[in-house]
Amino acid sequence: MKKKLSDQLSEKVIINSLLKKLNFNKKGTFNFENDAAYLSATKNYKTIVTTDSITENIDFFFNDPPESVAQKLVCVNLSDLSAMGSVPMAYTLNLSLNSKININWLNRFTNRLLKLQKKYNFYLLGGDISKSLELSLSANFFGKVKSKYIISQNKCSVGDDIWVTGNLGNSYLGYRFFTNSKIKANNKDKEFYKNSYLFPVPCMFGFIASKFISAATDISDGFYGDINKILNNKVGACLIKKDFLISNNLKKIISTNRSKISIEDIFSWGDDYQLVFTANKKFKHKINVLGKKNNIKLTNVGEIIKAGGIYDDSMSLIKNPSSYDHFS
Amino acid sequence: MKKKLSDQLSEKVIINSLLKKLNFNKKGTFNFENDAAYLSATKNYKTIVTTDSITENIDFFFNDPPESVAQKLVCVNLSDLSAMGSVPMAYTLNLSLNSKININWLNRFTNRLLKLQKKYNFYLLGGDISKSLELSLSANFFGKVKSKYIISQNKCSVGDDIWVTGNLGNSYLGYRFFTNSKIKANNKDKEFYKNSYLFPVPCMFGFIASKFISAATDISDGFYGDINKILNNKVGACLIKKDFLISNNLKKIISTNRSKISIEDIFSWGDDYQLVFTANKKFKHKINVLGKKNNIKLTNVGEIIKAGGIYDDSMSLIKNPSSYDHFS
Repeated sequence: MKKKLSDQLSEKVIINSLLKKLNFNKKGTFNFENDAAYLSATKNYKTIVTTDSITENIDFFFNDPPESVAQKLVCVNLSDLSAMGSVPMAYTLNLSLNSKININWLNRFTNRLLKLQKKYNFYLLGGDISKSLELSLSANFFGKVKSKYIISQNKCSVGDDIWVTGNLGNSYLGYRFFTNSKIKANNKDKEFYKNSYLFPVPCMFGFIASKFISAATDISDGFYGDINKILNNKVGACLIKKDFLISNNLKKIISTNRSKISIEDIFSWGDDYQLVFTANKKFKHKINVLGKKNNIKLTNVGEIIKAGGIYDDSMSLIKNPSSYDHFS
Repeated sequence: MKKKLSDQLSEKVIINSLLKKLNFNKKGTFNFENDAAYLSATKNYKTIVTTDSITENIDFFFNDPPESVAQKLVCVNLSDLSAMGSVPMAYTLNLSLNSKININWLNRFTNRLLKLQKKYNFYLLGGDISKSLELSLSANFFGKVKSKYIISQNKCSVGDDIWVTGNLGNSYLGYRFFTNSKIKANNKDKEFYKNSYLFPVPCMFGFIASKFISAATDISDGFYGDINKILNNKVGACLIKKDFLISNNLKKIISTNRSKISIEDIFSWGDDYQLVFTANKKFKHKINVLGKKNNIKLTNVGEIIKAGGIYDDSMSLIKNPSSYDHFS
């Protein structure tokens, strides 16, 4: 029961001129001519499934570049695949479009999807287009992982190292530049952090190191909240090196804007899409080697302890670690 | 970055009190505690993927019973799985909820999902909850089918029989009763047809007969339009028995409301979720036996011909067969 979205845009136009390039001629997509599509399974592998939606005025704003919307949609999902130890294969796309969307917007959006598909090697399997008041995009992503290397979110053990990839807070500072013009920094820095917010990059280390990882999640709902998911009310965490997760440049900007930003804010904010994971201490060297080989910054930020809660380096409890609740 | 949906409803409440019953304790769902879930593949089977969204004010109205919304969401997707010859396995659910939704609504909605999951034997794999102005629900459904029995939408041959399951038009008449109070019928009939519109039932014959079917699609965008998808601008259809697709009771109602409803309207309307499929003539008997065994009405409505277009029993071209364009 679907009608034309605007004079220029019928579903046929969207599919034929914009989306078909994204199926990479894979047989299972039936060139988008079927009611459904198929995924082939590989022996000893499991198909990992994750789904995330992003909605206008919540996860992005209409005036954001369409490339940013595409990047966020792909990043939130790839990051979940990585946290399960899997490598991306394919995705389906549900586009709920409103009348503000024109062909130029969709062209820029799909070109960024294409770029990301080539970079991370996955293809569009199928989808659905509908009309709505708000622009809303959801995607189901499919990854694959050897059955024995699937990573759970909370199967860590006391004594495991806690690791974090990359730097935290870059996206948060970018967001603050958009919403508070009084934060001081030079233009080059402002540009860098705004881009970190608009164009998040998933960390695909989960697949690379799945053999050694005991539990993992991506940092999407706030660092403390995401660590809490790993702890699962069963064990605790002692974080001795969390300041190493913030770049020197970001620390400098915080120190010149003390009344406006704090380091603790950063640990309650997500959207960096780095991974936090745990691993048995015996794998420390192997993990460091994999990090170097793949040019991924890794910080061994602390370890899993028996006592529940999250503690800092002086074993003080970091109170009420806040998190957003999340269904995935 | 997701907040409380209303005072009563946090994502945690929705997941723990309403959604967890839907995962049937399947291992791959990780009890909804992971960033993603996994699907196991069976040797020689393919995983079929389909996705459909339904949106308030387009596919349903807020005052429709929540059971109807659940039924429509499941029906549109199961129907696509059936058209590919597959049997349902699992699904993911993206709920974009607005402030009108309360726990009672969600309770009724999820109870209907549970009922349908038990009837058709599939479970909830995971999902995502977000806020939006309009209520919008999308689902990704996963089915399985033996690789050699995957049905394509348009791989029919000249001489193949064209078959249609069940009756057409019941949903259309129900919709007309909702929007035009001047159509005459007795109350019992009104109730029956309104229910056909609110609670569509997918026809799962695709899996049952996949061995014999050459091409299939579900009737969701209009009978003529859906047949056109099978013909794919390569062959044509001669329909000699299409009046057999309309029940005697519906014909009676049409004849007493001649100025308001026509038989041709029915063939341009979808939402009955019956299947139209083609099969080599040599399987006629086997298909009839399977229909009887499963208590599914089957009409051998015509055959595939070389000349492009859709023709009636006197070989007159049915002009401009209309269809909605549709992605996947």
